[in-house]
Amino acid sequence: MAKQKRTAINPRRDEDYPGWYQEVVKAADMAENSDVRGCMVIKPWGYAIWENIQKNLDIMFKDTGHVNAYFPLFIPKSFFEKEAEHVEGFAKECAVVTHTRLEDDGKGGLKPAGKLTEELIVRPTSETIIGASFSKWINSYRDLPLLINQWANVVRWEMRTRLFLRTTEFLWQEGHTAHETKKDALEETFKMLNVYAEFAEKFLAMPVIMGEKTESERFPGALSTFSIEAMMQDKKALQSGTSHFLGLNFAKASNIKFQNKDGKEEFAWTTSWGVSTRLIGALIMAHSDDDGLVLPPKIAPSHIVMVPIYRTEEERAKVMTFIDEFISKLKKLRYNEEKIRYQIDDRDMRGGEKLWDWIKKGVPIRLEIGPRDIENNSVFMGRRDKDAKDKTGMKADDFVNSLTKILDEIQQNIFDKALKFRNENTINIDDKDDFYKFFTPNDKSNPEIHGGFAMGHWCGNSECEEKIKDDLKVTIRCIPINEKEETGKCISCGKESKRRVVFAKAY
Amino acid sequence: MAKQKRTAINPRRDEDYPGWYQEVVKAADMAENSDVRGCMVIKPWGYAIWENIQKNLDIMFKDTGHVNAYFPLFIPKSFFEKEAEHVEGFAKECAVVTHTRLEDDGKGGLKPAGKLTEELIVRPTSETIIGASFSKWINSYRDLPLLINQWANVVRWEMRTRLFLRTTEFLWQEGHTAHETKKDALEETFKMLNVYAEFAEKFLAMPVIMGEKTESERFPGALSTFSIEAMMQDKKALQSGTSHFLGLNFAKASNIKFQNKDGKEEFAWTTSWGVSTRLIGALIMAHSDDDGLVLPPKIAPSHIVMVPIYRTEEERAKVMTFIDEFISKLKKLRYNEEKIRYQIDDRDMRGGEKLWDWIKKGVPIRLEIGPRDIENNSVFMGRRDKDAKDKTGMKADDFVNSLTKILDEIQQNIFDKALKFRNENTINIDDKDDFYKFFTPNDKSNPEIHGGFAMGHWCGNSECEEKIKDDLKVTIRCIPINEKEETGKCISCGKESKRRVVFAKAY
Repeated sequence: MAKQKRTAINPRRDEDYPGWYQEVVKAADMAENSDVRGCMVIKPWGYAIWENIQKNLDIMFKDTGHVNAYFPLFIPKSFFEKEAEHVEGFAKECAVVTHTRLEDDGKGGLKPAGKLTEELIVRPTSETIIGASFSKWINSYRDLPLLINQWANVVRWEMRTRLFLRTTEFLWQEGHTAHETKKDALEETFKMLNVYAEFAEKFLAMPVIMGEKTESERFPGALSTFSIEAMMQDKKALQSGTSHFLGLNFAKASNIKFQNKDGKEEFAWTTSWGVSTRLIGALIMAHSDDDGLVLPPKIAPSHIVMVPIYRTEEERAKVMTFIDEFISKLKKLRYNEEKIRYQIDDRDMRGGEKLWDWIKKGVPIRLEIGPRDIENNSVFMGRRDKDAKDKTGMKADDFVNSLTKILDEIQQNIFDKALKFRNENTINIDDKDDFYKFFTPNDKSNPEIHGGFAMGHWCGNSECEEKIKDDLKVTIRCIPINEKEETGKCISCGKESKRRVVFAKAY
Repeated sequence: MAKQKRTAINPRRDEDYPGWYQEVVKAADMAENSDVRGCMVIKPWGYAIWENIQKNLDIMFKDTGHVNAYFPLFIPKSFFEKEAEHVEGFAKECAVVTHTRLEDDGKGGLKPAGKLTEELIVRPTSETIIGASFSKWINSYRDLPLLINQWANVVRWEMRTRLFLRTTEFLWQEGHTAHETKKDALEETFKMLNVYAEFAEKFLAMPVIMGEKTESERFPGALSTFSIEAMMQDKKALQSGTSHFLGLNFAKASNIKFQNKDGKEEFAWTTSWGVSTRLIGALIMAHSDDDGLVLPPKIAPSHIVMVPIYRTEEERAKVMTFIDEFISKLKKLRYNEEKIRYQIDDRDMRGGEKLWDWIKKGVPIRLEIGPRDIENNSVFMGRRDKDAKDKTGMKADDFVNSLTKILDEIQQNIFDKALKFRNENTINIDDKDDFYKFFTPNDKSNPEIHGGFAMGHWCGNSECEEKIKDDLKVTIRCIPINEKEETGKCISCGKESKRRVVFAKAY
């Protein structure tokens, strides 16, 4: 067996993928578990990524006519009960507020007091509480479409949690819109699905498949749910954003009516759509390597880290002066319409150790700047999309002049690599045996390893879907919307099928 | 009696100030009460103001070295109990989560189930939960200072609520920092107080007094609390931001220790500081008039609204083409390093009605653009800092060239007006009778009216403070930090005093 290269992250991806994931999060100092079961602390490096996600998505939402608002954290139990499927979907995992103060328990501690007459649910999603506002705000067709988004925290009492991927409390945005016609609402549903796909590909450098969910994976109360699905490096799928066509279900539950152009009263057609801090989990698993996090420049908290190299105070003074001048040039640049984000790591520790810290944190460009570099007016560059040892000396001015091009190149390389990986691990399968073999791990010591995405035919019957899930833990991730119809035979029962769907193991 | 001018807001400020406030919020469509007692819905216009507050404050926080992070919404009861004064201060008004799901109650409804072994408190403030993280993150003096900020929602179960001013759930930021020395922590406390004062004055155009709170108004658990205090148009004070020096109290409660340069273990000195959506209430009450909201340009959701005026479709087409060209010029401008924010109101309703809508919403500049204007290549401008009828025709290019100057002028006028009002209603008082008269309303039909801020001497005794509060509902808002020492006699007991303090009625 060939000697393994030493890696900054242990275990490696091929040794223990879930263990690797945890270590990447830890090594990049992104988040940690808190003392509240299932709730995470998002540390500054992780939160800065979320801020960049928010900022860029928010621009896209506003460019498509949406405005932000804020609705109560608490939902009265009775609101929650209005839509039968909805409450069924969320009642099993919600935080319930029953009291409004604490008082002396007579034993030196405190006990809940001020019992509420009606319990409040900490929002797991806000269709019902926002619906109550919509029913007041909407009177006439002139009030439509109503296009609202909320950035908020939500709580779902998950039993098994994993940082970013599944936590009891998470941060997200939830869009809620109301429309005059079914057509308008469907258009909105697809528009936002497209916004998510564009964001995932352009900003997170993560190729995604857009498609419709089967009935069993639909949002509770929706008529149809669409999602973007991305392939992680363990070849599993991760649902990274959803857009729901709610039909008239929530309008009826919340009494959202309007007077149409003919003066008649109608229910409004509604949609909702969301992405969450789960995107950060997706980002980590799509791009990171055995040396740690790899960040696409567009959402990296820092584009560049500068590590001054010196031995004496005199050298330090010279290097820092050079860096100051260098920064004044960087400040004039714009990347993705924003300022260049940089930091200087002047901590009192070895240069190599510092550089590895930034590799693990995924910063796209590392610059080492020492006395010899400044003599030549040059910088020494390492790129996170290349091998850690593959570094280049460049004239400082050349670097500045080509910086936005370099960042674009890194962004593109990261995307291309992920796309290549997905393509290499996605195949059309028509034979049932092949299908079962594809999803059966051949390495017993690593039971998570399997083939990837199988594009297989499905007859549309939920029993076939169920059987595959029971046999293989494989689900239909989505029915892709950009694929052509094609006749074939259901991979499970052999009956006629009109199109291929994406089968995969999933998070 | 002179005939009253018709106003867009009824009641007027001088008729019924609290009623006027409610109407301004409603007419500007900023927020409304929700079905959850005490929780408000922040509507898009109100939320957009909050977004501008966030964006600009966040830049100031980052410029002073802080980074954002996110901590759990829930605080275990035992954490909450760690600091005695702290729990005392918040236990009486907190939302308590006791269950983690809902289940069938056998009567067609749902009842709480999955009882928690330890209750969770919805954060009213996060010192204790953030302290738990700090105690893990801080090991050595090298980890200090730790400068963290969080943007979040918090819940305090208030009995009497008013939109923006006092609500059960509100949005805020809370800074939490830890330092090696008492001096460093005190410096941070003052630095952030100054950031708040600068923000209030430069962005909200609201003059404030910086000062220290007396013991009775201190944050529960703090060694000292500082605040910025602004005068509202009913001459009451509104505390608009606070910065707390926590000493070692929370470090001891959460075990936040570090190894100092000599290798010895020490507790860290901590601070916390916050502003909330209450700032929007302050903004409304500081500047709005009897025609509605008045927004300083730097935080206005729109700088300009354009109202196209036309009778025929042909005229409309010409006007809209003109507006398109006009906008392409606006897009090149920057105000306060941001793009010009504008909107076009092409709704199907009368021009006058539209203009009044935007007056009530407080947009700094209204432009009417009709066929005659475009013939002259001009626009017709109304400014929110001037009388609604006082409009000016201007060449379109002149408008574009002078726009940033006009916005600066509006910003300055709004500030100057508020400062003049505060100065006119702030006086030094040395005589006890005068003091009592100053705070006694002379108009019995309007019991809220009184003199304003009284700068009076105080001996430092809490009994004197208490007596004045009981007699007049007047409190010491703060002990100003920028005033010189001056010997005098306590306004209540006549004993020696070293400096004047701000006495006022307060929100």
